[in-house]
Amino acid sequence: MFRILLLFSLFLSTSHASDLCVADLKGIKNPAGYPCKSKVTVNDFVFSGFKAGNTSNVFKAALTPAFVDEFPGVNGLGFSAARLDLDVGGIIPMHSHPSGSELLIMVSGHITAGFIASDNSVFLKTLSKGDLMIFPQGLLHFQLNSGNRKATAFFTYSSTNPGAQLLDLALFGNNLDSILVQKSTFLDPAQVKKLKGAFGGSY
Amino acid sequence: MFRILLLFSLFLSTSHASDLCVADLKGIKNPAGYPCKSKVTVNDFVFSGFKAGNTSNVFKAALTPAFVDEFPGVNGLGFSAARLDLDVGGIIPMHSHPSGSELLIMVSGHITAGFIASDNSVFLKTLSKGDLMIFPQGLLHFQLNSGNRKATAFFTYSSTNPGAQLLDLALFGNNLDSILVQKSTFLDPAQVKKLKGAFGGSY
Amino acid sequence: MFRILLLFSLFLSTSHASDLCVADLKGIKNPAGYPCKSKVTVNDFVFSGFKAGNTSNVFKAALTPAFVDEFPGVNGLGFSAARLDLDVGGIIPMHSHPSGSELLIMVSGHITAGFIASDNSVFLKTLSKGDLMIFPQGLLHFQLNSGNRKATAFFTYSSTNPGAQLLDLALFGNNLDSILVQKSTFLDPAQVKKLKGAFGGSY
Amino acid sequence: MFRILLLFSLFLSTSHASDLCVADLKGIKNPAGYPCKSKVTVNDFVFSGFKAGNTSNVFKAALTPAFVDEFPGVNGLGFSAARLDLDVGGIIPMHSHPSGSELLIMVSGHITAGFIASDNSVFLKTLSKGDLMIFPQGLLHFQLNSGNRKATAFFTYSSTNPGAQLLDLALFGNNLDSILVQKSTFLDPAQVKKLKGAFGGSY
Amino acid sequence: MFRILLLFSLFLSTSHASDLCVADLKGIKNPAGYPCKSKVTVNDFVFSGFKAGNTSNVFKAALTPAFVDEFPGVNGLGFSAARLDLDVGGIIPMHSHPSGSELLIMVSGHITAGFIASDNSVFLKTLSKGDLMIFPQGLLHFQLNSGNRKATAFFTYSSTNPGAQLLDLALFGNNLDSILVQKSTFLDPAQVKKLKGAFGGSY
Amino acid sequence: MFRILLLFSLFLSTSHASDLCVADLKGIKNPAGYPCKSKVTVNDFVFSGFKAGNTSNVFKAALTPAFVDEFPGVNGLGFSAARLDLDVGGIIPMHSHPSGSELLIMVSGHITAGFIASDNSVFLKTLSKGDLMIFPQGLLHFQLNSGNRKATAFFTYSSTNPGAQLLDLALFGNNLDSILVQKSTFLDPAQVKKLKGAFGGSY
Repeated sequence: MFRILLLFSLFLSTSHASDLCVADLKGIKNPAGYPCKSKVTVNDFVFSGFKAGNTSNVFKAALTPAFVDEFPGVNGLGFSAARLDLDVGGIIPMHSHPSGSELLIMVSGHITAGFIASDNSVFLKTLSKGDLMIFPQGLLHFQLNSGNRKATAFFTYSSTNPGAQLLDLALFGNNLDSILVQKSTFLDPAQVKKLKGAFGGSY
Repeated sequence: MFRILLLFSLFLSTSHASDLCVADLKGIKNPAGYPCKSKVTVNDFVFSGFKAGNTSNVFKAALTPAFVDEFPGVNGLGFSAARLDLDVGGIIPMHSHPSGSELLIMVSGHITAGFIASDNSVFLKTLSKGDLMIFPQGLLHFQLNSGNRKATAFFTYSSTNPGAQLLDLALFGNNLDSILVQKSTFLDPAQVKKLKGAFGGSY
Repeated sequence: MFRILLLFSLFLSTSHASDLCVADLKGIKNPAGYPCKSKVTVNDFVFSGFKAGNTSNVFKAALTPAFVDEFPGVNGLGFSAARLDLDVGGIIPMHSHPSGSELLIMVSGHITAGFIASDNSVFLKTLSKGDLMIFPQGLLHFQLNSGNRKATAFFTYSSTNPGAQLLDLALFGNNLDSILVQKSTFLDPAQVKKLKGAFGGSY
Repeated sequence: MFRILLLFSLFLSTSHASDLCVADLKGIKNPAGYPCKSKVTVNDFVFSGFKAGNTSNVFKAALTPAFVDEFPGVNGLGFSAARLDLDVGGIIPMHSHPSGSELLIMVSGHITAGFIASDNSVFLKTLSKGDLMIFPQGLLHFQLNSGNRKATAFFTYSSTNPGAQLLDLALFGNNLDSILVQKSTFLDPAQVKKLKGAFGGSY
Repeated sequence: MFRILLLFSLFLSTSHASDLCVADLKGIKNPAGYPCKSKVTVNDFVFSGFKAGNTSNVFKAALTPAFVDEFPGVNGLGFSAARLDLDVGGIIPMHSHPSGSELLIMVSGHITAGFIASDNSVFLKTLSKGDLMIFPQGLLHFQLNSGNRKATAFFTYSSTNPGAQLLDLALFGNNLDSILVQKSTFLDPAQVKKLKGAFGGSY
Repeated sequence: MFRILLLFSLFLSTSHASDLCVADLKGIKNPAGYPCKSKVTVNDFVFSGFKAGNTSNVFKAALTPAFVDEFPGVNGLGFSAARLDLDVGGIIPMHSHPSGSELLIMVSGHITAGFIASDNSVFLKTLSKGDLMIFPQGLLHFQLNSGNRKATAFFTYSSTNPGAQLLDLALFGNNLDSILVQKSTFLDPAQVKKLKGAFGGSY
């Protein structure tokens, strides 16, 4: 009887987990994501890089992504994650995610976070350990360490590849003509020139 | 025979166009949109307000939306539209749509339009009659009348309610604390104060 | 400090606009669309072919598509467009789009347009400049120049590849057996034969 | 220990099957479907009306739907079903489903079925017991009993409310102006008049 | 005139049925499914294998799938099917489908079927010819021939690849450590050992 | 000039953040979620209950959900979260989520976690601080504290209401007939009786 059952089990498992689709990062993406790897192991579903990042920079901040390019197991599953470390006074400046909403989970420290809705109302809160906060898709938001020690938070996103558009880099970190920056933002020429310098854009 | 056919037709049409779902704007929305109106006419599927808007403002611009709140027939169909009029030198300043991509169709005049991708590369083009341009979901973009006469364009969106976040209004047109604006944007205090004044935000 | 910021900006832009996915038209489609091109320029997001089409045909009509095969930038974005030109008396005959709803924007002239809902009710309107009209997915509809001069309209669709099934071509423009056409439509044999001839189908 | 486990089980089941959403048919639909019933029983998930329908009509056909309006358990689940009975020579005439693809499962008899793709190619097959056939969303198709006894088939749809547009009823079973029918279909006036009469439309 | 119409028809059919996407089973899947075959025939849309399966096994059951791997025409269409044959006393043991809901259509015989909701309530029914029953996505369910003759049913799923997780095989048909099975199920060691033996798992 | 800008800002903000849709938990859900609240504050987007739960139970486990019913801000956004606390030896027994994939983020301690794919292969890993692990939708999985101190982890889900089906409760915690449990699981009668007792089901 055992052998018959075994045969039956083989019959029933003809799908060979064909409902799993870990990203083959060497394959070519289309709008649904990466092609599926042919062989998968548990390590495709585990990401071990959620360590404290290096915050020795001007923003005193480190963001460690676990998006599909770093964590191929999320391919097709509609979510991903990141870790945030902020030194005292550190900040993730104003930015938005074009392709996904963000959920922040406070781990330690204190973060003052805010987003601006499309009617320009402000949603602002100082968060402590045990707090969660949502930043809906595509809206400008920021996170500032407003406490007196390091702060750590985890992010998850409703997308395997949420993207991120950092406002200063979008405006000042590229070759967008300074006159166009001024006209489209109403910033003063001197301000644009100064920040173009700071963020590496051509003036 | 005719009567029998007629009966059959009644039988077959038991669905009563239950696959149409025009918005009942007095109903309460959920994430899928508005509840369906019980009676619909052709006028629910027609919008007649695509006229030249009033451009007598500082931006020399008028945007006439035909989103679900103005055009209930798009409810549940995943698209909507708007008309843009720009006087000479007029501009739709830097903004993004959190919930939909944008397709611009040039009707007359010349518009210099650009968007910035999430890797900060710039996609910039001066458009003339007969040109179409795409602005992918959630990315900062602007449209400037760079010609020497009025310009008109039509927009369509991949959402019935794309939202719109205008950068200056998000930063300067509300009660977001000026210190937080400065820290999250690296703008100078004087610049923030000036634009808070211009856009009506509290300083 | 500038150099440090620049380094940070490079760090933050690791996603390399991986949220853009312009169609590589030489790649093989799957149900989500085409594979993503590796290098994109602004011209991938611009389509310059919205010119008046050639209406020297029996329908006195020209349809200029900007679907994903002509306009690869719409890949994965869920919309596309087309331009319609109709001479006096011209018509886009009865047809439907299997994979997307249609939004018509009148540019000039007068068009009498209609669709039939699944309960067989008729939604009919004569449209002028400034009017928009919706044709929900999969329903039969037509557009007739009912004015006394040329008419132009723009279409957008809630799909990058809406398809189009023209009734006469579906019934009379192929090798579908004439007996089956008659039985499935209740048309008279002489009528089927005549239109098979006109539309190039085998009788 | 048992009581503790029981308490734990109550704790864990706080979701109260909130992931089920049987249609409350008295509620108002929106684009996602009907509101959820507050109390459900197994009978909400069972439909017992898949009996042979009455084929005493001109089409010698009966279609018994189990769409969301007849079978509220399919609400939100993305599928529905129907039963087809065809007497000898019976036919489901040319039609399409605007909102869902169709899968036919032959139960008994012989059916010649066909659909026309958007490039006008014809997909035609005579089906016997044990055959399945797909009719993709929005494409014209028909089913004819081509055998010498009754035929029965089951349909399922990739939609809870696929809709159905029967060609003859759309063209001839309503008040669509006969001149517009002629112009948009190229049918002869006499043909239109005859079928308007047969299908109950106004001429 | 005929030739002109013919030319026009060629013009209009430029989409070449590009909205069809039959699976190329030799291609590499991504989360949206298989790549599209370049040439399709009616046989891609027909599946002729819905025959009675071999029930000479311990379960007295046969399941004949028509998922995308057996029936490439369902690729991208969001549904698939299967046939169930159960001898007297036969059973499809407790299982769930991770990626799709199931709709059962009774063809002959009597089946007692049940599913358990996420609040642990039981939905149980004995089904006869003409009955349909729904098993929502991801919930444990079973089907038992409770009559005194063979039973046959058809299944359809709201997915082209619904997957199937058979409880006994998941727990006892693999190398999952027996201590972990015991701890995670509260089954007795002897019970685990016995079923590991029966279902071919390593103990 | 300021007043004009202010007026313009009012004009542009006509959407009144209509793209936000916080759940009105007193409203009636449909398949897309809850109706939208008319007034929202930042507290709708913040959840402050991610505290250590009470693990004084047989499972030595506490799960603190932040699904849509506890955290209305996630309505329509496609994700939600939960916190897990496990004492030494504690376990979240074998279960699945019918409506969403799960992402585990280790906070402290050591957890041995596993899931079984639909081909019955086992994906097993012992996780430490800084590890993430994915449990794809609908698949059986468990988490065991395999360390020598308390363990804490955060979960996020690709659904606002992922549901949860705990295997023992589904089989033994309700009124499902014991004979049917035995037949559908191949468990021995004594085993079923014992666990029906432990989990509060009727025997």
